[in-house]
Amino acid sequence: MKILYIGDIMGEPGRRAVARMVPRLVAQRRIDVVIGNGENVAGGFGITPDLAEELFQAGLSAITTGNHAWDKREILDYFPRERRLLRPANYPEGVPGQGSVVVQTSGGEELGILQLMGRAYMPTLDCPFQVAKREMAKLRKRVAAVVVDMHAEATSEKMAMGHFLDGEATAVVGTHTHVQTADEQILPRGTAYLTDIGMTGPLHGVIGVKKELAIEKFLTGMPRRFEVASGPVVFCAALIDVDARIGKALSIERIRILD
Amino acid sequence: MKILYIGDIMGEPGRRAVARMVPRLVAQRRIDVVIGNGENVAGGFGITPDLAEELFQAGLSAITTGNHAWDKREILDYFPRERRLLRPANYPEGVPGQGSVVVQTSGGEELGILQLMGRAYMPTLDCPFQVAKREMAKLRKRVAAVVVDMHAEATSEKMAMGHFLDGEATAVVGTHTHVQTADEQILPRGTAYLTDIGMTGPLHGVIGVKKELAIEKFLTGMPRRFEVASGPVVFCAALIDVDARIGKALSIERIRILD
Amino acid sequence: MKILYIGDIMGEPGRRAVARMVPRLVAQRRIDVVIGNGENVAGGFGITPDLAEELFQAGLSAITTGNHAWDKREILDYFPRERRLLRPANYPEGVPGQGSVVVQTSGGEELGILQLMGRAYMPTLDCPFQVAKREMAKLRKRVAAVVVDMHAEATSEKMAMGHFLDGEATAVVGTHTHVQTADEQILPRGTAYLTDIGMTGPLHGVIGVKKELAIEKFLTGMPRRFEVASGPVVFCAALIDVDARIGKALSIERIRILD
Amino acid sequence: MKILYIGDIMGEPGRRAVARMVPRLVAQRRIDVVIGNGENVAGGFGITPDLAEELFQAGLSAITTGNHAWDKREILDYFPRERRLLRPANYPEGVPGQGSVVVQTSGGEELGILQLMGRAYMPTLDCPFQVAKREMAKLRKRVAAVVVDMHAEATSEKMAMGHFLDGEATAVVGTHTHVQTADEQILPRGTAYLTDIGMTGPLHGVIGVKKELAIEKFLTGMPRRFEVASGPVVFCAALIDVDARIGKALSIERIRILD
Ligand SMILES: [Fe+2]
Ligand SMILES: [Fe+2]
Ligand SMILES: [Fe+2]
Ligand SMILES: [Fe+2]
Ligand SMILES: [Fe+2]
Ligand SMILES: [Fe+2]
Ligand SMILES: [Fe+2]
Ligand SMILES: [Fe+2]
Repeated sequence: MKILYIGDIMGEPGRRAVARMVPRLVAQRRIDVVIGNGENVAGGFGITPDLAEELFQAGLSAITTGNHAWDKREILDYFPRERRLLRPANYPEGVPGQGSVVVQTSGGEELGILQLMGRAYMPTLDCPFQVAKREMAKLRKRVAAVVVDMHAEATSEKMAMGHFLDGEATAVVGTHTHVQTADEQILPRGTAYLTDIGMTGPLHGVIGVKKELAIEKFLTGMPRRFEVASGPVVFCAALIDVDARIGKALSIERIRILD
Repeated sequence: MKILYIGDIMGEPGRRAVARMVPRLVAQRRIDVVIGNGENVAGGFGITPDLAEELFQAGLSAITTGNHAWDKREILDYFPRERRLLRPANYPEGVPGQGSVVVQTSGGEELGILQLMGRAYMPTLDCPFQVAKREMAKLRKRVAAVVVDMHAEATSEKMAMGHFLDGEATAVVGTHTHVQTADEQILPRGTAYLTDIGMTGPLHGVIGVKKELAIEKFLTGMPRRFEVASGPVVFCAALIDVDARIGKALSIERIRILD
Repeated sequence: MKILYIGDIMGEPGRRAVARMVPRLVAQRRIDVVIGNGENVAGGFGITPDLAEELFQAGLSAITTGNHAWDKREILDYFPRERRLLRPANYPEGVPGQGSVVVQTSGGEELGILQLMGRAYMPTLDCPFQVAKREMAKLRKRVAAVVVDMHAEATSEKMAMGHFLDGEATAVVGTHTHVQTADEQILPRGTAYLTDIGMTGPLHGVIGVKKELAIEKFLTGMPRRFEVASGPVVFCAALIDVDARIGKALSIERIRILD
Repeated sequence: MKILYIGDIMGEPGRRAVARMVPRLVAQRRIDVVIGNGENVAGGFGITPDLAEELFQAGLSAITTGNHAWDKREILDYFPRERRLLRPANYPEGVPGQGSVVVQTSGGEELGILQLMGRAYMPTLDCPFQVAKREMAKLRKRVAAVVVDMHAEATSEKMAMGHFLDGEATAVVGTHTHVQTADEQILPRGTAYLTDIGMTGPLHGVIGVKKELAIEKFLTGMPRRFEVASGPVVFCAALIDVDARIGKALSIERIRILD
């Protein structure tokens, strides 16, 4: 089973790159299932029902989010209706939406997806490690292969999650920092790992934002309305090859294409 | 001029990798000058005069540090005596040590080195952008080529600094997160850029720390004394090729070697 | 010289309390000059030109702000036009507005006002201690009496500023936490001090916000649009009596009136 | 039932004030039970078994702690042995010690004590609101009166807890900021509330620390070894009068005595 996991998709430039690249990669690399992080598709902040539909149309089987999950109000009612749209599982009980889902690949196999969010330098949530343990136990009863999206700021928290789930999850991949890391690896007990997949969006901004606005904010300390940058776009993803019978990763490859 | 910049060197495993790899790379890649981040060489926390000397012996022409600069008390008196040991330039006036230095390469050329530290999710300091502007102006009067070490947590602050100094600095490279990023590039106005060089240290720890200790800290919330991990070691660096006459970067290459 | 300093004025309930209480207190307590913190007057978030005028009409000679200074866009152009409206002095150069002003009391005496903002758990700014030193030197050349508003979260940073300016400032009073502290005192070298003046606004909210909304935010971790609470209002201020010739505080008294 | 709750006891000056003041107040005010926060008794950082015994000898029936609970290693084994020493209840499962206890007053009545820790600007823990609900339900089956120590930085989180437990807890009192607040009140449904009891320790330090060291840390950004300040001492506590049959607070009074 070949899984393509696309990192934080940033605004319209990111969505257009997804629409162009996904069909091409699915064909070329014989990909069975595509997942992507959609927390920034709506002008950099959040996601709307229409944009979620657009991503499903482009070939995604599931969309994860993160700290920007709730930026657009119209998504609140959509979460309970659309199981393929996830928010981190360690939001407390009563929060709309789900943190995990089982999807079917084009080849008819099943894949579990679990999203967690870190707490270091992030909003306070339930413990992602405790929740990971609980949710993995549930998912592993149903499916052999589970990919975990660890949406977090601190490299230490992401790597700790990788090792914590090593041998349990098929893969632990990070999102949120918008910069791809170069540490793809199979951990000692067999879990594929990458600290951050990186952003799919404008290359020459500051994590996707117009650089002038970001620099001005750092220089003045004043709030600034951010806009998505323009210019050349980078498509960042991870390609994970899985032995679907046992849910073990065979390989993980970084994809970073200037589109 | 070929510059080898080694990322955060972690404890004894990191120091040994430096001792082994530097002579080999200098010979193979015809490197003119070697710089490294030494904030974690003393058991993961700080640096001592002896360990600084050890790194200079191993071929480093300058050592940068960061938030761990002061972890060992015996280094306080050493900072004013040893100009090749830097701490971030945006520490306020009166703090021991310097934030920049000009070194001579083996070929007799001059290179300026400037270290800054970010403020997002980091200790409060003077503004790294204002200090960068002021210090770059001073350094550029003396030398054509200046490499900047932006020791920071947030990818946004590092990329903003890259663009802020684009066309001014020869290169802006990041340290601190201990995970190498895959976004090496020449920015639009010519500055070489890499968000994080990554750590030189144990591969299978959590950013260099024994994974069991790191996981336990995340699980319990209690303070833990950290120990440097053991096992295979990764050597992370950036190799920057510079037109020394004009101080412009010709290329930047990530180096990540399992040692 | 009797100075009345009103803490963070919260929304319409706060503004109405100011309009009612200020004339009464000025008459009863023979107050010479009234200052207030206006960062929350516009529905809890920021201030507009109209609301600033309303506070000046109510008898305030100067208005300080804080981290909410910029919440309303229409205030940006007003800052440079209205010297009596202050923002923290340790915002970097180029930021609209001023951090200090000299006002005339009703008795014709002069009073300097300086606003600073802390950095612990707050936005990153220039060092409030360095800026305090520089700005106090300027103000003390013009006037004998200077009141400092230290807008900060951490009690440690506020008390450190009190002692740092002890003997230099007439008074150092804190704002921002919306809860009055009970530690009014004359510090060893003569500066009047109070860690936080407290909020003027709804008593039964959560620092002025409808309690149900605040509790829900803590329970769910999701963003919530906050609304100013209703019900009984508390008026919080500090009354500082000053020997105007030498700028020394004679006394500091907390005022906390259920209105 | 009259409860005396002493705020963060700071180092030796704090312990001596407790030893002097507790017997006097117990006699004068006819106090039935004394509780105190002991997270800073060991030179400002943590608590040891010997110092806990000293506080029990001085008349305390229970000791709460906070983020400094674990500063001294020798306390780890003591926590499971001594039920009267509490750590915040929202530390995760498996952490040594307990977050609640039922004690007997000198008059033979029972009082429940629950400690929670906030998460805003504090270490990441389980949700204090969820844990409060669960633990209050357990305690209320055994006892009518429960006092809650909310050890937290942000005034908003403390007030939100007060309102969250209003009508459930006898009293919610805050600790941690080391500055007494002036907002003692009976909340609408009957719970006694005070945002922070304040520190028992040196008056002229910076939250109990030598002021020169604290100021220097803010000025330089470098780590400093802190020392407990000397000079006059302030004793801060809350005196809560309770109708023991129904567990309802009759009154809450701040105590702040220059010793
Ligand atoms: Fe994102
Ligand atoms: Fe994110
Ligand atoms: Fe480091
Ligand atoms: Fe660092
Ligand atoms: Fe405020
Ligand atoms: Fe504020
Ligand atoms: Fe404390
Ligand atoms: Fe504390």
